Amino acid sequence: MADLVGNLLVGQSGGPTAVINSSIAGVVSEALNHSCIEEIYGGLNGVLGILNEEFIDLASESQQTIRALRHTPGAALGTCRFKLKKQQDFDRVLEVFKAHNIRYFFYAGGNDSQDTADKISKLAQQQGWEMRVIGIPKTIDNDLVATDHCPGYGSVIKYISSVVRELACDHQAMGQGDLVSVLEVMGRSAGWIAAGAALAKRRDHPHDPPHIIALPEVPFDNEKFLEDVRRVLKREKYCLVVVGEGLVDKDGNYVATAAGTDAFGHVQLGGAGEFLAGLVDQGIPGVKARVAKLGIVQRAAAIVASKTDSDEAFMAGAAAVKAAVNGETDKCVILIRGDSEQYSCETATVSLSEIANGVKKLPREWINEDGVSMNFQFHRYAQPLIQGETHVPFESGLPVFAKLDKVAVDKLLQPYEV
Amino acid sequence: MADLVGNLLVGQSGGPTAVINSSIAGVVSEALNHSCIEEIYGGLNGVLGILNEEFIDLASESQQTIRALRHTPGAALGTCRFKLKKQQDFDRVLEVFKAHNIRYFFYAGGNDSQDTADKISKLAQQQGWEMRVIGIPKTIDNDLVATDHCPGYGSVIKYISSVVRELACDHQAMGQGDLVSVLEVMGRSAGWIAAGAALAKRRDHPHDPPHIIALPEVPFDNEKFLEDVRRVLKREKYCLVVVGEGLVDKDGNYVATAAGTDAFGHVQLGGAGEFLAGLVDQGIPGVKARVAKLGIVQRAAAIVASKTDSDEAFMAGAAAVKAAVNGETDKCVILIRGDSEQYSCETATVSLSEIANGVKKLPREWINEDGVSMNFQFHRYAQPLIQGETHVPFESGLPVFAKLDKVAVDKLLQPYEV
Repeated sequence: MADLVGNLLVGQSGGPTAVINSSIAGVVSEALNHSCIEEIYGGLNGVLGILNEEFIDLASESQQTIRALRHTPGAALGTCRFKLKKQQDFDRVLEVFKAHNIRYFFYAGGNDSQDTADKISKLAQQQGWEMRVIGIPKTIDNDLVATDHCPGYGSVIKYISSVVRELACDHQAMGQGDLVSVLEVMGRSAGWIAAGAALAKRRDHPHDPPHIIALPEVPFDNEKFLEDVRRVLKREKYCLVVVGEGLVDKDGNYVATAAGTDAFGHVQLGGAGEFLAGLVDQGIPGVKARVAKLGIVQRAAAIVASKTDSDEAFMAGAAAVKAAVNGETDKCVILIRGDSEQYSCETATVSLSEIANGVKKLPREWINEDGVSMNFQFHRYAQPLIQGETHVPFESGLPVFAKLDKVAVDKLLQPYEV
Repeated sequence: MADLVGNLLVGQSGGPTAVINSSIAGVVSEALNHSCIEEIYGGLNGVLGILNEEFIDLASESQQTIRALRHTPGAALGTCRFKLKKQQDFDRVLEVFKAHNIRYFFYAGGNDSQDTADKISKLAQQQGWEMRVIGIPKTIDNDLVATDHCPGYGSVIKYISSVVRELACDHQAMGQGDLVSVLEVMGRSAGWIAAGAALAKRRDHPHDPPHIIALPEVPFDNEKFLEDVRRVLKREKYCLVVVGEGLVDKDGNYVATAAGTDAFGHVQLGGAGEFLAGLVDQGIPGVKARVAKLGIVQRAAAIVASKTDSDEAFMAGAAAVKAAVNGETDKCVILIRGDSEQYSCETATVSLSEIANGVKKLPREWINEDGVSMNFQFHRYAQPLIQGETHVPFESGLPVFAKLDKVAVDKLLQPYEV
């Protein structure tokens, strides 16, 4: 097979994570190894930047900056939640790709983003534009199918379980059987993130916090919750509850009021923590519930990111480039866990459409009978993902993150009305 | 002056901080240097543990554990918000002290706690029980008078401004002039904590976040706030707001509904962040506000604690012991900043009653004319307090904190009905 020679474009999409930039570093580092790849472009703000022809020259960034991406949260190229819908938009994307001789396109994102990549890839095939399109998995939600886990997930659960460890010290000091603390975490439709808080429990210390993990997978019952809290408070000085924002009642309705929907029609949630605290305040006399809502802080928590996660995100980016250079296209990189006792992880690829259309649920059999704690199967799965610490440099007392120079690539087309 | 020979008791009170345990380490380490101090006891749960005669033998803890206290959040001895009121309670405290030959009493806490220490000290004097009582300052609120700053404050503002740096990366990626992010932080009556977020701005980058700091010192005006947000959104991709929980309107009423009061009659707050987000959602079409409420997480955030703060907390504990051994009593340790350009800090003492009855306000002249940002005087004050990083050890991917063995001291008296 003759090498496909041309330029590379990489973009980021959807909500940022602590390690999505590490994937970009992986793409850039690997791309430099292949002479068939000429220019290395970054597209700003996902598909928006493609429509607007906003590319930057990633090869001109310093090595220092590319290395610093490995510990920088957010999405250094910018991202978007804009969804390509009109045929005109897709045609524009192809026009831009052709104008800039984009032959390698990598897109880091969740299932919506991989759906977009899939559609772009298929359109290119239809139009006879030879191009290799490879998706790079990304999401703190850990809900992509086919892959063992998603880059971004290990870091968010390392952060949350570290916070639980810190809170345990605080609450152990303050509680007298009368303190309920509710930590609200993300998780729109699955409890992967909330479940991860279970890692805070030390081995053989089943009474360590979190005492109650309220998961979207288990229909929420007010009375059962209050009973659980009362039981914990009899035994412990405090009760620490971790709740996923997507908690639903037995009829499948969110317990907290929906505040709106995003561009993909996903419901934007918030308030599950306040809801649980309200139940406690009203239902258990003399007990005061305190709420912390980590919000976006959790997906930006690079200071307490997982080195395993950051390394795997880098590996996924590099693997995407290798796959493309080897002739693969219309694929998404996935992570495969080794069979041995000792954790190992390698990459493979599956079709983009497979990733685009699935959602991986938290297995019900990993949740204990009590509905509010995780069993050894979950621990065995998640424990390896939080191992190791990245090292964010501090200057003058504060963390310092990568800033791209963003040397703009000349536009070649007329402006486009998005 | 003849040495006062006897036992030492140290207790902790009020809300924990990231570094209050470092003060306990300072007390224990220094006490070992003085032969006039025989036993080194820790009182559990503040004055509650004294009333209940719940003492532990701190000298029997391993050196490793005492060292680990320097990076352990919470309050390892336990704390309380119980307020001694009845004469009977005070008499009981003295009875317990006499029974255990407590001649050195150290109490780490805020102004309420120092008021308690002051009353105990005066009662001992009345009853002719020779004892040295020294307070150790502690509060993330930074509102104690006389002292330049309070142990606990440097760490909480280092943590919050680090979070703002992380959020900046996230929001820079996500915002398209339509993202408002509200970070709610503690601060019951003063804006010291919210103001500290200003440190996240890089030197000579006035447009760095936080773009708006909503302080309790500046009466809140809905319209002016929305104008500020609109102006920032015209200029920046996003607007990051930091709000102190104690935000009040022009009539001095909290903007967020009060949820109750604690044992000292302080109003327990929450909801200022949601309030501001609601204003934005209703007042600025097309803009979505996201809220994170750090809650107790911020005062337990040991992983991102300030080494300067931890070291000064340790120094304050050691200084309390030195002062007591030198014959001082009825005093509280304070921190004094050196005059030179290069930051330095040493300890001194003032009377407990001075600390007990004052509240230090955030100087109005440190707030810019715009009412939502801090000027160079604040930066000069706060910058040195966040310097240096403590190093929390991680094992199996998670932080490990000190656990005291808590070897109980035999009770000598009849139980007491609290």
